[in-house]
Amino acid sequence: MDRQTLEQYRDIYRKGLLVDILPFWEKHAMDREDGGFMFCLDRDGSILDTDKGVWQTARYTWMVLSLYNEVEKREAWLDTGKHGIDFLEKHCHDVHGKLYFMVDKKGLPLRMRRYVYSEAFAAIAYGAYFRACGQEPYRQKAAETFTRFREYNETPGMIPSKYTAHRKMRSMGVPMIGIVTAQELRTNLQDESYTAYISTWIREIGKNFMNHQYQAVMETVGPNGELLDHFDGRTLNPGHAIEAAWFILREALHRNLDPELIRLGCTMLDWMWEIGWDKEYGGIYYFRDVKGLPVQEYWHDMKFWWPHNEAVIATLMAYLLTGDRKYAAWHREVHEWSFKHFPDPEYGEWYGYLHRDGSISVPLKGNIWKGPFHVPRMYYMAWKLCENLLNK
Amino acid sequence: MDRQTLEQYRDIYRKGLLVDILPFWEKHAMDREDGGFMFCLDRDGSILDTDKGVWQTARYTWMVLSLYNEVEKREAWLDTGKHGIDFLEKHCHDVHGKLYFMVDKKGLPLRMRRYVYSEAFAAIAYGAYFRACGQEPYRQKAAETFTRFREYNETPGMIPSKYTAHRKMRSMGVPMIGIVTAQELRTNLQDESYTAYISTWIREIGKNFMNHQYQAVMETVGPNGELLDHFDGRTLNPGHAIEAAWFILREALHRNLDPELIRLGCTMLDWMWEIGWDKEYGGIYYFRDVKGLPVQEYWHDMKFWWPHNEAVIATLMAYLLTGDRKYAAWHREVHEWSFKHFPDPEYGEWYGYLHRDGSISVPLKGNIWKGPFHVPRMYYMAWKLCENLLNK
Repeated sequence: MDRQTLEQYRDIYRKGLLVDILPFWEKHAMDREDGGFMFCLDRDGSILDTDKGVWQTARYTWMVLSLYNEVEKREAWLDTGKHGIDFLEKHCHDVHGKLYFMVDKKGLPLRMRRYVYSEAFAAIAYGAYFRACGQEPYRQKAAETFTRFREYNETPGMIPSKYTAHRKMRSMGVPMIGIVTAQELRTNLQDESYTAYISTWIREIGKNFMNHQYQAVMETVGPNGELLDHFDGRTLNPGHAIEAAWFILREALHRNLDPELIRLGCTMLDWMWEIGWDKEYGGIYYFRDVKGLPVQEYWHDMKFWWPHNEAVIATLMAYLLTGDRKYAAWHREVHEWSFKHFPDPEYGEWYGYLHRDGSISVPLKGNIWKGPFHVPRMYYMAWKLCENLLNK
Repeated sequence: MDRQTLEQYRDIYRKGLLVDILPFWEKHAMDREDGGFMFCLDRDGSILDTDKGVWQTARYTWMVLSLYNEVEKREAWLDTGKHGIDFLEKHCHDVHGKLYFMVDKKGLPLRMRRYVYSEAFAAIAYGAYFRACGQEPYRQKAAETFTRFREYNETPGMIPSKYTAHRKMRSMGVPMIGIVTAQELRTNLQDESYTAYISTWIREIGKNFMNHQYQAVMETVGPNGELLDHFDGRTLNPGHAIEAAWFILREALHRNLDPELIRLGCTMLDWMWEIGWDKEYGGIYYFRDVKGLPVQEYWHDMKFWWPHNEAVIATLMAYLLTGDRKYAAWHREVHEWSFKHFPDPEYGEWYGYLHRDGSISVPLKGNIWKGPFHVPRMYYMAWKLCENLLNK
């Protein structure tokens, strides 16, 4: 990529974040009456549902506090972060400290789920708040919430399995979210001890989820990484694997360009780009079958916002680390397809759910799954990656 | 509809059932090695997954035994039914008698679910087998399994709720499946006492799930039928409501053309045809929002096989009961759209999952959700409804 192209990309991402994406949520999501945020928003920002997702609450809180910590000490970002932290602390934990999945407008609990991803997202929110405000209890809260995430996932039986013991499974979600959570805490708590967890989880992915026969990153495998030749075991999630790829590439950056990690992260990206990129319509499929068979999940060929966000980051990061022009070309492909189809020129932000051909499935901007996380994180990280490339 | 048209439809349904649909499953699904059936089949009948869904096992067993009871005493149908009954009895109950959702090829349990629809489907399988073979223990099994379905659904807390007590909900699934289950048992066990349950469940639908303001049959409401103005509460399932409509119209047939039941069933069909029929591409949407807002479920605008099966039955039955030519016209519309898009002329049976425009999303013929139930039931019932209309 030449300098001019990089500058253009950098400006698109920086301005997009500050002028389009963040203002949409700042204007529409804040609930000053009952605290927290309402993310279930229609195309124009009007409220579709007042219920509050804990994932999105924690992730938006982390996002604005990260911008406060890393971009600029804007009081508004700190205030919004504090607003999110208050709601998380006041309403989102049950009596055992486990986090809910969803609460109502007033903060009354609506749904608890078996798994513990809310914990990972709350941990990074608390960690970013500690760095922003320096109050020691938040270091503690971040560390404790991370420990809870680990304990639930590492203690057999603590998360009730959907399947009986006759179908034992491992899911890539745990090590993958573990890596990025520990990376955030390592930085924001300034605690290198998190590196050991990251190494363990990266080994777990390398050992159990890399299927060399099919050249695919698996989502679900048997206890020793075996291919489970059933619908669930064969189902690949290219966007998810590409997101995991850049978590590992980011670790390579942290570890002085560790060549093993660069090889692992780039292999994951290479395999899943090949499997996930739709050669007919462009964009990244939601699910694929490792053997090319029909997928059971109905929305397998839709184009969701977040795999595209993750692929923009992953391709830029791979290009930064390797200089391989293939990654610059892939970045251009996914950037162009995404910016052609996802942004809403009239009301701002991105649509989340497109059909395979890029046409809009629903015009909403947020729901229980989509909030201000993947989109602003992409704009922010891609902006910084362009700066890194310009400074090389 | 004139006589000739009716005869044409009758022949399409009868021949389709006997020459296309049933042979597909008879040829490909039977597991002579481990018992039961493998329904997860690709377009050509090859096996995609050896796991066995309990819903489909019970429903196919019911289907073939119903044909044995009502169409012709073919030994092959009785044998297949016995084959299904054996597998259900041997492998599909846990130690408390609750039924699993999924077992593996050998019959080892894989998944139990909170809710108890497997019980309703097993009850009708046992009931049909009792009628076919006359063995008293199966009358008992059918009755007990139905009682378990009722107890789980009617005893607060016996099915753990997905939501906390802050969001109390009722779902139409329970009364609706209750009605058809009790209808089958009433006939096959020759026991009129099931009528009382049917009346209760029909009142429950009439009282709580008919939203006159929006002219919509709700899927999920508050404890007293209130509209829950959230994604879940607003989400309509037109195919499901149209299926419930014909369960009620069938009750009207049983009760000497009870005008109240005809009015209720036809209102449900009228409302949900208006909401569910895609005026641009044809076919029936999977989900719609009662206020016309964006739906949260990703596959909302896809065209699935079963809503079309249910609409073929419901429109024919409404025409039989009322003589209103509107229903004949709707029947023609849904019949033509369905037969244009769903059947596979090369390998037989129907595709299950189409995009909004009718193009194929996956070519498979069966999975954990799709098996030999809605399609053959439609062919069978529509054939018989055409005969009824011809004999009028």
